[in-house]
Amino acid sequence: MTDIKAALRAQHIETPSWAYGNSGTRFKVFAQKGVPRDPYEKLADAAQVHAYTGIAPTVALHIPWDKVDDYADLARHARELGVGIGAINSNVFQDDDYMLGSVTNPSARVRRKATDHLLECVDIMDATGSDTLKLWFSDGINYPGQDDIRARQDRLAESLAEVYDRLGEGQRFLLEYKLFEPAFYATDVPDWGTAYAHCVKLGPKAQVVVDTGHHAPGTNIEFIVAFLLREGKLGGFDFNSRFYADDDLMVGAADPFQLFRIMFEVVRGGGLDAEAGVAFMLDQCHNIEPKIPGQIRSVMNVQEATAKALLVDREALAAAQSEGDVLGANAVFMDAYNTDVRPLLAELREESGLAPDPMTAYAKSGYFEKIAAERVGGNQAGWGA
Amino acid sequence: MTDIKAALRAQHIETPSWAYGNSGTRFKVFAQKGVPRDPYEKLADAAQVHAYTGIAPTVALHIPWDKVDDYADLARHARELGVGIGAINSNVFQDDDYMLGSVTNPSARVRRKATDHLLECVDIMDATGSDTLKLWFSDGINYPGQDDIRARQDRLAESLAEVYDRLGEGQRFLLEYKLFEPAFYATDVPDWGTAYAHCVKLGPKAQVVVDTGHHAPGTNIEFIVAFLLREGKLGGFDFNSRFYADDDLMVGAADPFQLFRIMFEVVRGGGLDAEAGVAFMLDQCHNIEPKIPGQIRSVMNVQEATAKALLVDREALAAAQSEGDVLGANAVFMDAYNTDVRPLLAELREESGLAPDPMTAYAKSGYFEKIAAERVGGNQAGWGA
Amino acid sequence: MTDIKAALRAQHIETPSWAYGNSGTRFKVFAQKGVPRDPYEKLADAAQVHAYTGIAPTVALHIPWDKVDDYADLARHARELGVGIGAINSNVFQDDDYMLGSVTNPSARVRRKATDHLLECVDIMDATGSDTLKLWFSDGINYPGQDDIRARQDRLAESLAEVYDRLGEGQRFLLEYKLFEPAFYATDVPDWGTAYAHCVKLGPKAQVVVDTGHHAPGTNIEFIVAFLLREGKLGGFDFNSRFYADDDLMVGAADPFQLFRIMFEVVRGGGLDAEAGVAFMLDQCHNIEPKIPGQIRSVMNVQEATAKALLVDREALAAAQSEGDVLGANAVFMDAYNTDVRPLLAELREESGLAPDPMTAYAKSGYFEKIAAERVGGNQAGWGA
Amino acid sequence: MTDIKAALRAQHIETPSWAYGNSGTRFKVFAQKGVPRDPYEKLADAAQVHAYTGIAPTVALHIPWDKVDDYADLARHARELGVGIGAINSNVFQDDDYMLGSVTNPSARVRRKATDHLLECVDIMDATGSDTLKLWFSDGINYPGQDDIRARQDRLAESLAEVYDRLGEGQRFLLEYKLFEPAFYATDVPDWGTAYAHCVKLGPKAQVVVDTGHHAPGTNIEFIVAFLLREGKLGGFDFNSRFYADDDLMVGAADPFQLFRIMFEVVRGGGLDAEAGVAFMLDQCHNIEPKIPGQIRSVMNVQEATAKALLVDREALAAAQSEGDVLGANAVFMDAYNTDVRPLLAELREESGLAPDPMTAYAKSGYFEKIAAERVGGNQAGWGA
Repeated sequence: MTDIKAALRAQHIETPSWAYGNSGTRFKVFAQKGVPRDPYEKLADAAQVHAYTGIAPTVALHIPWDKVDDYADLARHARELGVGIGAINSNVFQDDDYMLGSVTNPSARVRRKATDHLLECVDIMDATGSDTLKLWFSDGINYPGQDDIRARQDRLAESLAEVYDRLGEGQRFLLEYKLFEPAFYATDVPDWGTAYAHCVKLGPKAQVVVDTGHHAPGTNIEFIVAFLLREGKLGGFDFNSRFYADDDLMVGAADPFQLFRIMFEVVRGGGLDAEAGVAFMLDQCHNIEPKIPGQIRSVMNVQEATAKALLVDREALAAAQSEGDVLGANAVFMDAYNTDVRPLLAELREESGLAPDPMTAYAKSGYFEKIAAERVGGNQAGWGA
Repeated sequence: MTDIKAALRAQHIETPSWAYGNSGTRFKVFAQKGVPRDPYEKLADAAQVHAYTGIAPTVALHIPWDKVDDYADLARHARELGVGIGAINSNVFQDDDYMLGSVTNPSARVRRKATDHLLECVDIMDATGSDTLKLWFSDGINYPGQDDIRARQDRLAESLAEVYDRLGEGQRFLLEYKLFEPAFYATDVPDWGTAYAHCVKLGPKAQVVVDTGHHAPGTNIEFIVAFLLREGKLGGFDFNSRFYADDDLMVGAADPFQLFRIMFEVVRGGGLDAEAGVAFMLDQCHNIEPKIPGQIRSVMNVQEATAKALLVDREALAAAQSEGDVLGANAVFMDAYNTDVRPLLAELREESGLAPDPMTAYAKSGYFEKIAAERVGGNQAGWGA
Repeated sequence: MTDIKAALRAQHIETPSWAYGNSGTRFKVFAQKGVPRDPYEKLADAAQVHAYTGIAPTVALHIPWDKVDDYADLARHARELGVGIGAINSNVFQDDDYMLGSVTNPSARVRRKATDHLLECVDIMDATGSDTLKLWFSDGINYPGQDDIRARQDRLAESLAEVYDRLGEGQRFLLEYKLFEPAFYATDVPDWGTAYAHCVKLGPKAQVVVDTGHHAPGTNIEFIVAFLLREGKLGGFDFNSRFYADDDLMVGAADPFQLFRIMFEVVRGGGLDAEAGVAFMLDQCHNIEPKIPGQIRSVMNVQEATAKALLVDREALAAAQSEGDVLGANAVFMDAYNTDVRPLLAELREESGLAPDPMTAYAKSGYFEKIAAERVGGNQAGWGA
Repeated sequence: MTDIKAALRAQHIETPSWAYGNSGTRFKVFAQKGVPRDPYEKLADAAQVHAYTGIAPTVALHIPWDKVDDYADLARHARELGVGIGAINSNVFQDDDYMLGSVTNPSARVRRKATDHLLECVDIMDATGSDTLKLWFSDGINYPGQDDIRARQDRLAESLAEVYDRLGEGQRFLLEYKLFEPAFYATDVPDWGTAYAHCVKLGPKAQVVVDTGHHAPGTNIEFIVAFLLREGKLGGFDFNSRFYADDDLMVGAADPFQLFRIMFEVVRGGGLDAEAGVAFMLDQCHNIEPKIPGQIRSVMNVQEATAKALLVDREALAAAQSEGDVLGANAVFMDAYNTDVRPLLAELREESGLAPDPMTAYAKSGYFEKIAAERVGGNQAGWGA
């Protein structure tokens, strides 16, 4: 149990700045009270999540949404709040130029512009001390014949190589894949195989990031996790959950058993060790629920799944597996999942000087009432701001 | 062939006013040149589609997007353009009050407001002469436990009953179902069975509308079409196409063979006959392609599928089917699908005084250049406008 | 807690005779030791499941697999073993005549034969005292055009009506739906809507049965359960679980949270009450794990999900829901799911004179060693025997 | 057009020996008249497909189903019939030892046995002159925790390496992937990424084979084809079609437009050139339709899709693509698809001395009546024989 608690204490979960802003679907973005108006306010909210969970010490930025004049000042602001800057996300999907793609656009001019944006993100890494660039491309096509699927791979490879070469000592990029949306016929990085193949060619500074909402129905995500860890190519996670497509619901809300299976493969593959370099990031939005509690709940969900994964009796499991005892091995596995780990985690928090229940503690803190009163006027942050 | 041509001449395909405005995904709405700024300009664009295809004589309105002070004037404007007002769509998903639902909202006040909006749409039907109300509810929940699934059905039934009672002579409503989006856990009208069950209880003025993009993967849409026609409950179609979710691509673009199979069941079930009352509506958007040509192409795609469906040698098919000749029956069916019907349709158009190729004729007309130059300033129409 | 225990004590889960025989995929049926050779031995194995769980007192038969000369004798044998005969399943898919369908076959002769088989099953109900006929039709077509989709509905309706009329006092039939397999293009009863529509027309003795493995990806099964309960048309469940298609894995093995959500809707809709008449049946196979322990585990999984569903604080849930408190309502719901109910169920068993852990108790009983030694020679039961 | 005809004449489509035997689903294998009783008779049937289509000159064998004492004699028999031996398929899924896996089984003894079988298949390649070994592993697990997902990859890699080393000059193996079935939780080679990663490590003699029925819903198969061709890792196709899972219907029967898109990427990527080494194989079964005509129809379907793919005006397509003309590029693409290529193919056949319509010609030949009369007694071939 000591080992388990140590592992849980060491786990870090990164929250994304965009989760604190307004979000929604193509049908409607519903505005909420107290939503941040700039990156500084986003960091303040993220710091609340860390204050109550104790395991969310970094915040991912999204460029250009989080553009500021002085990144060193933003990083200093974060430190003062008790958090740090995590991954830099390069958003190349909201400029009119990117309608037919960014780095895979048929136009050389647009590709140049997109790659330049990626290079600028590395500059921001330098300025903020971030060691991770996260690359997601919405690039793809909507109609058969619209563009040359293979030529787009050539263009992608060219841009990635340029960015790879720009990475400094101790820096890396994570390449994200996604089945579909916003492209509706062919996406240029649609699956882990595509991301993996590009990363292998580029070298050790390129790794794959698994967004748990970006797969075709029926895909076994924990298999992908196990495979990438075995290859040394799992760079991290974008956690969220989904019943249908890329629903971006709170992680663990749709299929907590799946989250447990994923975390088990992480544990089994050594992915919790610091040297593995696996980043545990949230990447989800709260369209209809309040944002800060939504993030706290999500961090807790990942933590609970991790605790259960750590509780699996690996020795008993291995014994049953090697004997071909199907029901026995499954029972060892399910025994951990069926355990209620909430008392253990409450204890862990109290040992660290935190309140046992982060949700209640945050609710009682008055923080929400404060920001709802203060943050009046100005433009609330959201996609595109 | 005479019969086939007569059937093709009689077919009417309705285009939706929103297709002429800007649209997009949650990631970005890309603006296009020449996009209408008000319902009058939308009707003008829709009239172009009819002018070149000859089979798109009506236009669906969406309320509140197409709200005007004087609906009789709008209807007169349409008539002058050579088109008519089709179905009235009641949009109850873009008001902040509807965040947790419209007619199924836990709040009685919000439900009242939503139902009142539906009743107002019937007033607009009276004012415009429209005979069809189209009801789509984005209502649903994102998280298990968020609301009572069953109580929401009670609320839905109550609202539908009130609207049903308000319908006048010769008026009907079509209830639309959709698997998911924007609700991501449980949608209140998720499948045809739910829509059907409500409609059966309400009576003959309530029918189901099939949106071809609103099904779970693997769903056999033509089966649903055949079943609803057999029950007298197929009110119409919202045509579009998809590879993944509700992609709203041009109808026939993703799976033309599926469209053919659907149209075959329509033909086989008597759905082309005027007395069947099946409305053939487009309900799709053009995120990255120009809107008017996108609609023309879509109308042509439905027409081509209809022509192929009419070409099936029904006698030979029935003979092979009754003999259990699997390959023979399939061959009869595929023979029609594999036929190139474009020459036939070109001939049909020329017999009606139209250009044989609507796409080329529109492109040459100069209409786009005209609106691109004229429609400067003002707010382009789009979702929410 | 007293109410919860009472409800758990009253729950009955029916196991199917075929689960005790060999089963597999189209690729291979692996034979296991000690497998029954006839219906009498199947009942003996089913009695073991009841002996250790205390809540599996009935066994479903499958005709013709379980054909015997004297059904009264079989029923007497069951009673002596401490169990009873449950639903009668009418299998009309393994005769060469049924290659192109049973009750929907284009041949009138084959349809007659199939319907006669269904009527014979009602005779067996009379002879065994069973009150439930379960109808699953593998009928469908593999190729577009192969047969007339709509005419097949006519034939289906005709056969169902004849069977319905034959049902005696206190007898009913449950109509099962399935998305696909063994038909690969169009299945004649592919979804709950189709089954529901037929049952509504027939009357109160016809109800829908929900097999949890028979849906398209993404289908919200608990919605269907809630809807059918609201309509008084939920006849029962065929429980099993799946990651992909109709995998027929142990119920609760693939998505225990889904099973909990389903059981919650059952509880909420009054489906645990005896008068609701909802049959809780297992319908799964054990291709690679031993059969009796597989059934015991499955019964326990349903029981655990039921216990969690009963633990939901309905009052707190309703309060949060009516306030639109998304996170609060979800938290109440998840609190019950995250509870470890195994101690409660162990206690419940001990109060009933059973061993606290059925799996261990069965393993220690020596029953498997006994049947493995005794059941040598003869043909092991399986699909087709 | 000359080039197109030349390309069509050069195309070779391989049929599989197992398609001529009986097949079915887990529910039932329906027996058909005239079905072969041994590999010699299978080859005779395959020769008929070549005789009428002119483009099916090789036949894939499946070991152990097609085990004979003298493979040289079997190869000679094939040559006399006018066909040759194609790929050797290694079936390691029907021995009781393989219940928990073949090369990934937890038991070292079983793994040794399975790998030895693969090596024996290379011996058969030597004996028959086949240059291609096709590896499909049904290996996987049904329940979470049942076995160690990652250790199974280690075992897989070890076996593949041993087989790779055994390959002689001019020999290769193709590694097949499949989403699921018969394993229902985690399959050891579930997607192209896994197959690709193993093949890249092994070297140039290892390539990926794409079975068109082995993907998750929504997977863009033509993207995979384009990607693998770009990497030089597309070894070939197992063609068939599906609406749901691995339905193994006739290729082109479910989604002819998808087949066209796949063949277009083949053409665009140089995959029709002999030096590309892409094997075009059928891998499907005819559960309810006659086998030889089923294969003829399937060969024709691939040929028609190839002809349409060759008809795409590549120059016009590239021009529209580079201009970002979404509708224009799509129109060029669809123009080829909408063309009726059957007259062209009839002409091509007549130029080669064949009957213009292979289906009619075969039907009139009397071959079926002959084998139905002659092949009486003995065991019909099927899975497992």
